Amino acid sequence: MNLVLLYKNKKVLITGGLGFLGSNIVNEIVPFGAEVTIIDSLNPLYGGNIFNIENIKDKVKVIIGDIRDENLINETVKDKDIIFNLAAQVSYIDSNSMPFEDLDIDCKGQLVILEACRKYNKGVKIVFASSRMVLGKILSEAVDENHPTNPLSLYGIHKLTAEKYHLMYFKDYGVKSVILRITNPFGERQQIKHSKYSLPGWFMRLAMEGKTIKIFGDGNQLRDYIYGTDIARAFVLCAVSDNTDGEIYNCGYGESWHFKDMVNLIVKTVGSGDIEFVPWPENYERIETGDFKTDISKLIKTTGWKPEISIEDGIKRMVDYYKEHKDKYI
Amino acid sequence: MNLVLLYKNKKVLITGGLGFLGSNIVNEIVPFGAEVTIIDSLNPLYGGNIFNIENIKDKVKVIIGDIRDENLINETVKDKDIIFNLAAQVSYIDSNSMPFEDLDIDCKGQLVILEACRKYNKGVKIVFASSRMVLGKILSEAVDENHPTNPLSLYGIHKLTAEKYHLMYFKDYGVKSVILRITNPFGERQQIKHSKYSLPGWFMRLAMEGKTIKIFGDGNQLRDYIYGTDIARAFVLCAVSDNTDGEIYNCGYGESWHFKDMVNLIVKTVGSGDIEFVPWPENYERIETGDFKTDISKLIKTTGWKPEISIEDGIKRMVDYYKEHKDKYI
Repeated sequence: MNLVLLYKNKKVLITGGLGFLGSNIVNEIVPFGAEVTIIDSLNPLYGGNIFNIENIKDKVKVIIGDIRDENLINETVKDKDIIFNLAAQVSYIDSNSMPFEDLDIDCKGQLVILEACRKYNKGVKIVFASSRMVLGKILSEAVDENHPTNPLSLYGIHKLTAEKYHLMYFKDYGVKSVILRITNPFGERQQIKHSKYSLPGWFMRLAMEGKTIKIFGDGNQLRDYIYGTDIARAFVLCAVSDNTDGEIYNCGYGESWHFKDMVNLIVKTVGSGDIEFVPWPENYERIETGDFKTDISKLIKTTGWKPEISIEDGIKRMVDYYKEHKDKYI
Repeated sequence: MNLVLLYKNKKVLITGGLGFLGSNIVNEIVPFGAEVTIIDSLNPLYGGNIFNIENIKDKVKVIIGDIRDENLINETVKDKDIIFNLAAQVSYIDSNSMPFEDLDIDCKGQLVILEACRKYNKGVKIVFASSRMVLGKILSEAVDENHPTNPLSLYGIHKLTAEKYHLMYFKDYGVKSVILRITNPFGERQQIKHSKYSLPGWFMRLAMEGKTIKIFGDGNQLRDYIYGTDIARAFVLCAVSDNTDGEIYNCGYGESWHFKDMVNLIVKTVGSGDIEFVPWPENYERIETGDFKTDISKLIKTTGWKPEISIEDGIKRMVDYYKEHKDKYI
């Protein structure tokens, strides 16, 4: 698939485009010649960071705005060929302590986008960022896209609701969309301000500062870590692949690591920091999903995508990145 | 199960208690000696009707208020033993033309109730009124509670979201709840103002007025019609049955009728009115679910409930009711 040809002069909107995954997509497609518009609220709770596009800021249009702003969104979707739809409240922990805000951002915001496309741009193709958190307790050894969806957090419930919105707007109105269920993302450009989502970044910061990383329980839970640039390429391929309309795809590495081994790898790669094992806090254990292994064969088969960056290589890249740019992310 | 004993002096809140199903529950449990509080917005779009409790209005407390009113709900849930949770935007057709209001009532309103219970009344038991519309296109001959959920309307999506809320608040916080997925309800006390939900009532009005009832397509689609008083008894039993916490139950008659036969039965029983077959309007056909047969064995097994009123008996009861009270419902 010739992505340069497919993306040259394409009008692309990226919601949450200053965030971790959004900005990785920006960095992927700007070199192809895509005309990129970013919309990002820069809500300080989340990962939006203007530095994430520092290297290409003259080649993109940036709108600081909220996806819940109907007039803004109506106007912004109008001429776009592709929307990469990543703007969200992204912490499953925060979602339960601020339920109404989570609902407002992750459901109402998505309805605003889809209503705008239904009214003003039915020909657009949307790629929506969902999450493995829609699944809840893991019931099968290798999780495919048909796994039951019984989320344990409002974040997971509202991501599931937004998945259903996208599927419905395709079935009822013909607005084309495809859903990627991301496993455990990590990589350069992720926020490292707190521990509320994507722990590898937070742990890396602790290690770089010579601090102690706390592991809840025995750390033997299995997780599927997928690097940001691999996720970005999955989005980029899904948008231009045939047969992805109305489909859901797992987007992970396809292999699992013990949580504690991920932490050990970070400490070893960084060269500083300690590890301490502590008991699960009550609120966390209830929403622990259990071991997680992802079946990514559907995405591979349909798009030809394959993850390229192992956790070892990814952690090395992250260390290099944050050694140079840590001050921009704290 | 001795319902008089189980409900005597029980403090019961019924959201949407002036509506079709809510008021049927009121009429079921007031004779048992329950202390009933009704909260209902009397939103003129929906089925709330003060006449629905005319016969027992001195024995219940009625609050005209909205489930989205946090302070009101926080205060109202405090001392209750049981909440029958039926307040909702109830039209799947309207939901798609007023997406944000549907989200606000059917999701935010439910979050307000569950947050109130989590904070102020963890010991309460909630019975939530869901709908077969959470299922979307019907994929199996007899639909059990594990049927895939891919709704074709925002109404269905938001009902599904509210189901997930109830399950999550039970799993995460211990707030006990049980979900009833209602098939096609009909019966006395239902609104007969328009055709946007529960067609038997609307058709009965047309027949009583000697008008023509339009059937879309050939009218051969199968539907499961369940009478209001049978649904009310399912709610009443679920609230006091062991083993219903965190469970979903289909609530239907368990047998299907062709749509056109239901209409014929109404015309015949009323003794006036005509039938005309017309093509499906485009917007309707897309969200047509296909034939529907319900497996109600789970509810029967757990609670001992059984539907008692056949469609023939139900239509007769409705004709008697609306012959006497039609002026209160138009």
